[in-house]
Amino acid sequence: MLIVQKYGGTSVGSPQRIQAVADRIVKTRAAGHQVVVVVSAMGHSTDALVELASQITSEPNAREMDALLATGEQVSTALLAMALQSRHVKANSFTGWQAGIKTEPVHGAARIEDIDPRALTDYLKEDGVAIVAGFQGIALGSVTTLGRGGSDTTAVAIAAALHADRCEIYTDVDGVYTADPRKVPSARKLPMVSYEEMLELANLGSQVLHPRAVETAKRHNVALVVRSSFSDAEGTVITDMSTMEGLRVVTGVAQEKEVARVAILGVSLQSRPLAGLFGALADENINVDVIVQSIIRESEVDVSFTVFEADLPRVITLLDVLKPQLGFREVLHEKGLSKISIVGAGMISNPGVAAQMFEALEAVGAQVKMVSTSEIKVSCVIEQELLERALNSVHDSFALGKE
Amino acid sequence: MLIVQKYGGTSVGSPQRIQAVADRIVKTRAAGHQVVVVVSAMGHSTDALVELASQITSEPNAREMDALLATGEQVSTALLAMALQSRHVKANSFTGWQAGIKTEPVHGAARIEDIDPRALTDYLKEDGVAIVAGFQGIALGSVTTLGRGGSDTTAVAIAAALHADRCEIYTDVDGVYTADPRKVPSARKLPMVSYEEMLELANLGSQVLHPRAVETAKRHNVALVVRSSFSDAEGTVITDMSTMEGLRVVTGVAQEKEVARVAILGVSLQSRPLAGLFGALADENINVDVIVQSIIRESEVDVSFTVFEADLPRVITLLDVLKPQLGFREVLHEKGLSKISIVGAGMISNPGVAAQMFEALEAVGAQVKMVSTSEIKVSCVIEQELLERALNSVHDSFALGKE
Repeated sequence: MLIVQKYGGTSVGSPQRIQAVADRIVKTRAAGHQVVVVVSAMGHSTDALVELASQITSEPNAREMDALLATGEQVSTALLAMALQSRHVKANSFTGWQAGIKTEPVHGAARIEDIDPRALTDYLKEDGVAIVAGFQGIALGSVTTLGRGGSDTTAVAIAAALHADRCEIYTDVDGVYTADPRKVPSARKLPMVSYEEMLELANLGSQVLHPRAVETAKRHNVALVVRSSFSDAEGTVITDMSTMEGLRVVTGVAQEKEVARVAILGVSLQSRPLAGLFGALADENINVDVIVQSIIRESEVDVSFTVFEADLPRVITLLDVLKPQLGFREVLHEKGLSKISIVGAGMISNPGVAAQMFEALEAVGAQVKMVSTSEIKVSCVIEQELLERALNSVHDSFALGKE
Repeated sequence: MLIVQKYGGTSVGSPQRIQAVADRIVKTRAAGHQVVVVVSAMGHSTDALVELASQITSEPNAREMDALLATGEQVSTALLAMALQSRHVKANSFTGWQAGIKTEPVHGAARIEDIDPRALTDYLKEDGVAIVAGFQGIALGSVTTLGRGGSDTTAVAIAAALHADRCEIYTDVDGVYTADPRKVPSARKLPMVSYEEMLELANLGSQVLHPRAVETAKRHNVALVVRSSFSDAEGTVITDMSTMEGLRVVTGVAQEKEVARVAILGVSLQSRPLAGLFGALADENINVDVIVQSIIRESEVDVSFTVFEADLPRVITLLDVLKPQLGFREVLHEKGLSKISIVGAGMISNPGVAAQMFEALEAVGAQVKMVSTSEIKVSCVIEQELLERALNSVHDSFALGKE
């Protein structure tokens, strides 16, 4: 088999951990597989580079920031290649450009446009282990970086370009769970989830895998495996819905702990108020989640939405600025909320799922303050202090702890 | 004018110093010049990378060591480019490969084979300041490094490829002196020296400029200037002998403080003993300097040579190993020696120079233990404790403190 393995910053956070990663690669080779490895920068080395830049200027140029940050992954690829060579395994480091990773000509959050896999396939033919720097590529001769989740995306894109048999993402958790095991004692590791479920789970605060990497895997139908780099436990396979028999109605429960709700009352419907409001929030990089709009009365609406609690002060300041332009009556806000979501590919054909969730929430006294649904997800905003009890109640209600 | 400026590790050792370098480049630009800048890695960052590698393996692969070390210069180029941009000066960082620096396919100490200057000339046409990573290039798609003195050499080679008007080497001293000013109070900064003199001075322990960079400058006739990055003092111009009128007989006095002498008595002349001996020393990376061979008697010779005092224990161990093969009688060694040298392009046509030096040494009671001469240099090995007095005596004797 041809396997692409990706190791995150924690997995290569020290020389000792790099040695452990090398041991794991040696084992994979010994089992007869070809291996391409994608690595992130060591632990907090990226933060250290960002700090250096901040001592030069408060507004670093994006091209130079990319040139600077890309060195972090180059260091870990070189060290890992050395560690393999000292174990008598043939290995070479590859920067993004050396691995043929071409991105759009954007700095800081470029998307991969194309991979020319020849350098890697040639090296695999020589029976070597190719160690590729994640998170980076090249565009118009300049080094670019891929932004958040970039190394996961690099691994998936390389797996697609090489038609690899699978792409293993090594991280500090050992798979995808039916709920956060720190909050829900009966949570169970899932042997398999669909791309779509994983996307919803990823977007819902389950930090296992970046949504962008899942999307890329789904588009190219790359079989993904999430595993722990600190244990030999089997991980979770993320694959196409069609290859999974017997879709579960509900696969898992996810949470977002610190959420705030903002309600804007009496928004006048002249001059596209919603576009103006959410456009302004997006310009400030404020992530808006659940959006609810009331019924229109007398050319006015009430709009409410959730944001990360940490963003609330910036939202309130921004709304003060926008008030004359948008022409609303009043702003209300509420902190101390959480979002709880159920995700499941089988939900599409099961209309009773939302009702069952509301029941499980009411059973622990949690009032549903907002609801949002998609084809494979139901999210409810509730009081934060009831979150843990709610998670367990919903988890039990759908019997997620049982195989 | 088109000026290439090179800043060493000390000059870019901290964000504050990088800011100072940016200020100096802004001044050069304001004076109407085009600028290409070559930088080394920040301060001790290369040592930190070497230390990281040593925690992975005691025998790091040379290709990966190059990939690792090359990141040091990439960091300083990106930071300097940011610093210039924050001063509203258009600037771009270039790695070795981005600057078109092609080397022989050797790792650790590659020589530059060719520079394709198009990326740099294109950027100069756009009126930008190109910031190039020193010490690195590319060969067969892999990153290579140039070894010691690499950044100086990069600067000179780029100046040659771009037909720059001059190449300024910024360092922590403000020029080339007639003697070490810390030891000889009357030492004077030289406004100009020839490539040949600088080569001898560089080889004789004057740490201002690496001999390799001087050789490259001589070969391509690049006008070099050595200046301090911490002051505005005029530096020393290093140029072709033919452009200098009135060659000085003696230009400067150089020293090598800690030298040891090794004498091998009764070396049999069978089986090429000298090649065997010095080949073995070279294989161990032991630098041998002055070599003196006695007259051959009864197919035996005595050979003596100097090494750095720090290398002496390794030399003695090695000679023990070599004894059966080389078949000599006895090894003597002496520590606590120094080498004092005079250098001057005008020496060629002045036979009395060596005699005048011996006289100046005898005047302070220094016994000459070994002598070696070249066309523009006389070196004498003397007792270390007399070095400072000897330096001053020789410096005075040739009136080097006077214009």
